[in-house]
Amino acid sequence: MRLHALSLTGMRSAIAQRRCNAQEIVQACLQRVTDHEARVGAWAHPIDPVGVLHRWHEDAQRHAPSPFQGLPLGVKDTIDVCAMPAERGSAIWRRRVAREDAAAVSMLKTAGLFVLGKTVTTEFAYFKPGKTSNPHNAEHTPGGSSSGSAAAVAAGMVPVALGSQTAASVIRPASYCGVAAWVATRGSISLRGVMPLAQSCDSLGAFARDTHDLLLIEAYLRRSAESAEAAAPLAFGAVDPGRLVDEEMGACYENALAQLSAHGVRIIPSSLSAYTGDWIASHSRIMAYEAAQNLAFEYNNSRAALSEPLRQLIESGIDQSGEAHEQDLTHRAEAWSAVMAELERPVALIAPAATGAAPRGLAGTGRPDMSRPWQWLGLPQVCLPCAHSSSSLPLGVQLIGRPHQDRALLRQALWLQQQLGWQAPEITPS
Amino acid sequence: MRLHALSLTGMRSAIAQRRCNAQEIVQACLQRVTDHEARVGAWAHPIDPVGVLHRWHEDAQRHAPSPFQGLPLGVKDTIDVCAMPAERGSAIWRRRVAREDAAAVSMLKTAGLFVLGKTVTTEFAYFKPGKTSNPHNAEHTPGGSSSGSAAAVAAGMVPVALGSQTAASVIRPASYCGVAAWVATRGSISLRGVMPLAQSCDSLGAFARDTHDLLLIEAYLRRSAESAEAAAPLAFGAVDPGRLVDEEMGACYENALAQLSAHGVRIIPSSLSAYTGDWIASHSRIMAYEAAQNLAFEYNNSRAALSEPLRQLIESGIDQSGEAHEQDLTHRAEAWSAVMAELERPVALIAPAATGAAPRGLAGTGRPDMSRPWQWLGLPQVCLPCAHSSSSLPLGVQLIGRPHQDRALLRQALWLQQQLGWQAPEITPS
Repeated sequence: MRLHALSLTGMRSAIAQRRCNAQEIVQACLQRVTDHEARVGAWAHPIDPVGVLHRWHEDAQRHAPSPFQGLPLGVKDTIDVCAMPAERGSAIWRRRVAREDAAAVSMLKTAGLFVLGKTVTTEFAYFKPGKTSNPHNAEHTPGGSSSGSAAAVAAGMVPVALGSQTAASVIRPASYCGVAAWVATRGSISLRGVMPLAQSCDSLGAFARDTHDLLLIEAYLRRSAESAEAAAPLAFGAVDPGRLVDEEMGACYENALAQLSAHGVRIIPSSLSAYTGDWIASHSRIMAYEAAQNLAFEYNNSRAALSEPLRQLIESGIDQSGEAHEQDLTHRAEAWSAVMAELERPVALIAPAATGAAPRGLAGTGRPDMSRPWQWLGLPQVCLPCAHSSSSLPLGVQLIGRPHQDRALLRQALWLQQQLGWQAPEITPS
Repeated sequence: MRLHALSLTGMRSAIAQRRCNAQEIVQACLQRVTDHEARVGAWAHPIDPVGVLHRWHEDAQRHAPSPFQGLPLGVKDTIDVCAMPAERGSAIWRRRVAREDAAAVSMLKTAGLFVLGKTVTTEFAYFKPGKTSNPHNAEHTPGGSSSGSAAAVAAGMVPVALGSQTAASVIRPASYCGVAAWVATRGSISLRGVMPLAQSCDSLGAFARDTHDLLLIEAYLRRSAESAEAAAPLAFGAVDPGRLVDEEMGACYENALAQLSAHGVRIIPSSLSAYTGDWIASHSRIMAYEAAQNLAFEYNNSRAALSEPLRQLIESGIDQSGEAHEQDLTHRAEAWSAVMAELERPVALIAPAATGAAPRGLAGTGRPDMSRPWQWLGLPQVCLPCAHSSSSLPLGVQLIGRPHQDRALLRQALWLQQQLGWQAPEITPS
């Protein structure tokens, strides 16, 4: 049994059936880190297997005699974990160690997860990449900003990892790395302990290779009963990607819609101008306006240590007039009404998860446009890998659901995984 | 000239006209603290005038040669100020010192404000009071949870102070202490560095004796042009307080409406069941549900150090079913539509700011019900003192505005201050 390749759900079953114990699982994941981290670069801080196992035993003793599963979790370095580094992808916070757990981390610890380590983020979850490469091809970007979380899950180092999304920081790296991911309805999960970038666009997210695990994480974070049942979708509203996607992604999307139709899912062309109007531009402006607030401390005290693109983002936010900002808010409210009206019929929308496969090069993290409209509105989103490009890089689709209907959306995604085989590629030994 | 009694706006003018300098103002405020803190108990940590002045000079040097005004600001102890204590009203965080500025604090520092000190909060901004008493009568509560900020401003120790509101934590203490206050539209100001209690109910707020100062703080936080012009309201939607208010507050409210009518403001009876339906109960449930997330770290690690009411709040949140929570969210969305429809006509609603004057005793902070509906919806709110109870305690009214129309609301409040004399009582020497 290759323990590191199990899903979180599979790990729990294996333990329940006494086929292995949690320590063996953690050791298998640590071995996977040892073997592949030099190539992937998923972790923000060096993972010392001996030290991690020592911490694991300490936690197990602290929890005794109550059951401690201690199954491994990766956490993006913009999210605080008590007594662990949290440098937010910036030299400004080098050697910063968190003194408290983010709310989501605390809830997942209570549910029995163990933080293996902190994963690489771009600078303050914006554009400047960290050291991570795409596990499927080290010359390609893993996407960002939750680069390390996506790559660590794709490489089989952890079954699940936390991330956050302000533009496309979860859905895009999931699509590029070929894993499933979930972005929670904005505001539904506390962001205490998560470094904010834009308060009306930030959402928590999670990565896994198996959609079952996303349902499990959702239940842990909502403290609700577990529900692993798939739900067959009756219909999807298919969003027109316009000219944003490349040829391969366009074909992948058309093929995905055809597969759905063949399985009896009605495809209703969406009338939303999500990608063809100015929703994307409006999201960008609101993000800049709010980033100027959220990064005021760093901008005022350590301006020279910010990357040029981040400085430009902040300054474009500072330069916005209140009137222009209000227009964007009005525009967003109108779009919200249009989307809610459309979601009266199908439970969810479907769209390409990214503009194409992961681009070559590690200097950027790819285009975020396919996620901006949904993140602008704060809707729940799920990414599923469903195909490969000609160069063997993953391609994904995303489902977008009604607010607070995260579980219904995840149950439909699980159906797609089970019925259409839309899931993370097998983890290869090397 | 009694410098401590000036508004922030007045301090700026006095400096511009060379009638005094900023250091003299800070010294006057510090003297006021020295004279009255033993009675009022507004500050979470001892204020050492020599140390504060030393810090003020250091800041002035750091800003040189660019202009540094350094005018005094109080900041609630749930809001982080770099290198200052931030104990959040709980023994769990004793000796915690913040390592970064909250976004709002950083923006106000840039605008030239100087943090005189941290003000008393209730335990994690919930119910358990700190040491503060009402400056108008030390046997009465100042209200909570931003107790110290309201009391410090009312006692003339600082012209302005920051707070936050999840239920009634700004409007209620403002009404009890007889000062003006503003609660910003939810999400409009970053809450980075503000300890969260309930993410879909938390808003930033500010206290001042003069509505001009609230407009100034709004301009600083929005980084927009200053605008000190009053705006005459054409009409207000008058909300029926039902049976929630006591006789004195009921009379105060009726009189306020009569005064407005006499000044040509049309009073339109509101059809909203804000206080007579179950909006208040729904707010309480959502707050508990989210508090269970936000305080997961303390609940999981330091349960015995939480007060009984806070433990009960968290546990009632944990016990809520996902279905019940969803009903509350649906209910809130419906109420939102009703309020937006009503606000098509008048720019703002008006209601009593609290159920009565500050209750006797320091064991509680009074009833939060008059604010819960508006905080549930995240609307901007302004409190104005407008009368006194038979026992000489202040009574206030509140205006509730359209989302993101904070400035329009504040300009109307300024008109009420100027035309009707609704303002903080003069600060008396003792």
